[in-house]
This record gives sequence, structure tokens and C-alpha cells, in this order.
Amino acid sequence: MGSTFIHTYVSVDCVVFGFDHENRLNILLVQRFLDALPAEKQKKLPGSLILSDEDVDDAAQRVLHELTGIKKMVLKQFKCFADPLRASNTDDIQWMDKEYKHNIDRIITVAYLSLCKIDHKINSSKYDTVDWCPIDKVPSLPFDHNQIIEESFVEIKRWIEYDFSIIFELLPKKFTIRQLYQLYNALSEKQIDIKNFHKKISSFNYIIPLNEIEKGVSHRAARYYKFDAKVYKKNNNKLIK
Amino acid sequence: MGSTFIHTYVSVDCVVFGFDHENRLNILLVQRFLDALPAEKQKKLPGSLILSDEDVDDAAQRVLHELTGIKKMVLKQFKCFADPLRASNTDDIQWMDKEYKHNIDRIITVAYLSLCKIDHKINSSKYDTVDWCPIDKVPSLPFDHNQIIEESFVEIKRWIEYDFSIIFELLPKKFTIRQLYQLYNALSEKQIDIKNFHKKISSFNYIIPLNEIEKGVSHRAARYYKFDAKVYKKNNNKLIK
Repeated sequence: MGSTFIHTYVSVDCVVFGFDHENRLNILLVQRFLDALPAEKQKKLPGSLILSDEDVDDAAQRVLHELTGIKKMVLKQFKCFADPLRASNTDDIQWMDKEYKHNIDRIITVAYLSLCKIDHKINSSKYDTVDWCPIDKVPSLPFDHNQIIEESFVEIKRWIEYDFSIIFELLPKKFTIRQLYQLYNALSEKQIDIKNFHKKISSFNYIIPLNEIEKGVSHRAARYYKFDAKVYKKNNNKLIK
Repeated sequence: MGSTFIHTYVSVDCVVFGFDHENRLNILLVQRFLDALPAEKQKKLPGSLILSDEDVDDAAQRVLHELTGIKKMVLKQFKCFADPLRASNTDDIQWMDKEYKHNIDRIITVAYLSLCKIDHKINSSKYDTVDWCPIDKVPSLPFDHNQIIEESFVEIKRWIEYDFSIIFELLPKKFTIRQLYQLYNALSEKQIDIKNFHKKISSFNYIIPLNEIEKGVSHRAARYYKFDAKVYKKNNNKLIK
């Protein structure tokens, strides 16, 4: 056959979401080092080339572990990005030469979504700098990382629409309905008012009220709730809802 | 760095679903040719290595076009399969040598789902033999194609759960509620009885009754319906249903 087939390096890139105390979705960015650029211009998504004896899912778990120190994180492969020109920027080529000591011409990447409670201690074994960045403040990133983040935001909404239990991965173990509401609004296209939200939520038997209310808050102290995964699983396996 | 990174070929493989008149889900299989094996043992999923200037989605559209003659098919990338041993079977290595004239050591594949009305004429420009095969009659296939099909079946259910309009891609333009019911049952974990199904369906304003009934059937002739994509889109964009 006369056609040329690609023969390429393959990487994984991870978009880790967190939900902060100001009700914003954040993602984890790391620092890359390139002499020519000022440090603040060198953020990127955490990722890695995959090793010769590694499957992609294992590579993503490795990246997340090196990134956060957390052994097993919820993760979801969502898309392979393979635009032939995605690694053709001069800075990016220079950085890959330095980081990997390989002459990399083309590289395709498999993108993963992950979720993290934002209070969880980040303990990276690989990166000196790991920072939460609000999703609407993400700077211009190398390769197609901005596009990957954009598509991951669509994907996280789909994931939660398909499996609502995923939303609780972003909340503390005990949470108020207001917190759940604000996270929901940060993720949803359509805004819903809090009264209707309360009504809807109170019909979900997997959201369990606790005998505990907020302490030391200036507004009226709200009740805490927890999510019951077992009850959720029992009731949510229908094709038509 | 001491680690070895993979440098690999990348392919796409397509699982095309159809729904037949005996109410079974089918998928399209093609023939590969290997002298050592009898023809009936040489079925595989349609697929191709991706070209050096090609993105994966474009490669999948090319494969589907070469397979069916249809210009634009509904398709969904669903997973990258990258087990280091997925192409280590001797027959598979021999076939790749013959087909691609390259010495291929490792190959990762990006799997796609597609849907086809089973009455659509299949007009392949690439394959001599393209056959529908009931999903419970799929023979042992090369590489990890059986696993890909298994996971595609989970994925098609998710896809339809997320976006119910997808189910109508598998039905004729005008269909009876019984046809929709049987397709739904072939896809669903939980069986639903036809009375409840009728009741549920009649609440969906995007399923429109036509002034036309079945002809020449031995049972009582049923009314035909059509799917209205515009009405569907207007009402289905909520995170909580």
C-alpha cells in the first residue's frame, strides 16, 4: 500500500476537577520548565507519555498518583486527541525534546477526567508546583490543552447527567443542600431556583439528612446531608427515567 | 529518563449496530484473508491504521464510508484500547504483515460506535464481504475485537440512556410502537411490559402518530409513528430529569 501510516508516541493527559469554597469549578495545573518563557506562562495539564509495557488506563492512574499522592482516583477516559498538528508549536517541540530526550514528531493523547475533593491534601511525587485554577481563569496552555479542558467540561456534565452520583465526588462527605445547589448550578446549562431544587432533592432517597448543622456561620445554620451510594445504585439502573 | 516510551501504530475500529426484522441487534463484520485459516474463521471488525496526516475521527469516517458507501454516518468515539499484548497473536501478526507491509510490533486502537438502519444498502468500496451478524452469534474474532464489541454494547446503552433520540437511528423512518418496544427491550437491562411502555411512550411528545397503519400483516395492523428530532431537542437539555 502506498499510504503512510502514523507511527507515533502516545500520551495521557488528565483534567482533575475540584469545587472550591467560592463555588467555582477548578482544575489542577502543573508547571513545565522552559528557559525561554516566564514561569507563569508555563502551566500545563498533568500528563505523560505512556510506557512500552503500559495500558492507557494504567498510565492515567500513574499520572494521577504522581500528581496527587492519592492511590486510586475516580477517572474516566473521554477522548483521544489526534490532530496531526497538535504538537507542532516550536515551544512545545523544544519542551518535549528537553523532557523526554526523544525526537518527537507527532503525538496523540488520550484524555481523562478525574474528580477530587478540593480539601484533599495534594502530595505530588513528580511536580514541584501543582495548583488549583478556576476553570474560567485558565491561561493559554501548550498543545491543545485548552481544547481538552473545554471538552472535558462538556464531558463532566454528560457524566453527571448519566450518573448523578458522580457529583458527590466533588463535595465534602457531609454537605449542605446549598453547597450541592451551587455545584449543580456551576455544572448545569439551565439555572434552577433553590426552592424547586430543594423540592427535587427531597424526593431523592439517597440524600440522607444528618443530625448535625453548620457551626460558626453568619447566615442561618443549615443541616448537613450525606450521600448514600448503596441506595442510589439500587434505584438508578433504568434506560427510560 | 531511563523509561522506554511506546512508539506505535494507531488504528480505528468501528462497531456498526443494526436492528433486524427478528428483533435482534446485529453488527457489521468484514472478512480478512489469511491462507492458513478457513474463511469462516476470518471475520473481523472493520478498521484501518490511521494515515500520517489524518485525525482519528476522520479515519473512522473514512472506514465507515469505505465499509458502507454512506457518506456521513452517526458515530461516537468510545474508547482507546491499548493493552500491550493486544496484537501479539501469531495469526494477527501475520495478517498485519500481509495487509500493511509494515513490521508492526504494537498497535493501539481507538474504537467507534455507529448506527445504521438495517435496510440501508451496504455498498462497500473496500471489502468484498460485509455481513450483518447477530450480536449473540459473533464468532471468535482476532485481536481484542470480541472485547471491543462487548464494551460497545455497554456503551450503546449508555449513549441511548443519555440521549434517547439515538434509538431512532436504528429504526425505519416510520415504525410501530411494537418495533420501538422490541428494540428497547433488546437494549435494556430491565424488561418492561408493553402496557407500561405504551403509557410511557404516549407521554413523549416527540413520537408522532401518523395517519397510516401496517399493511398485509397477519396480526392486527398497528399504527405507524415517526420521531420528531426538533421537538426532542427542545425538551431534553436538563441535568436532572
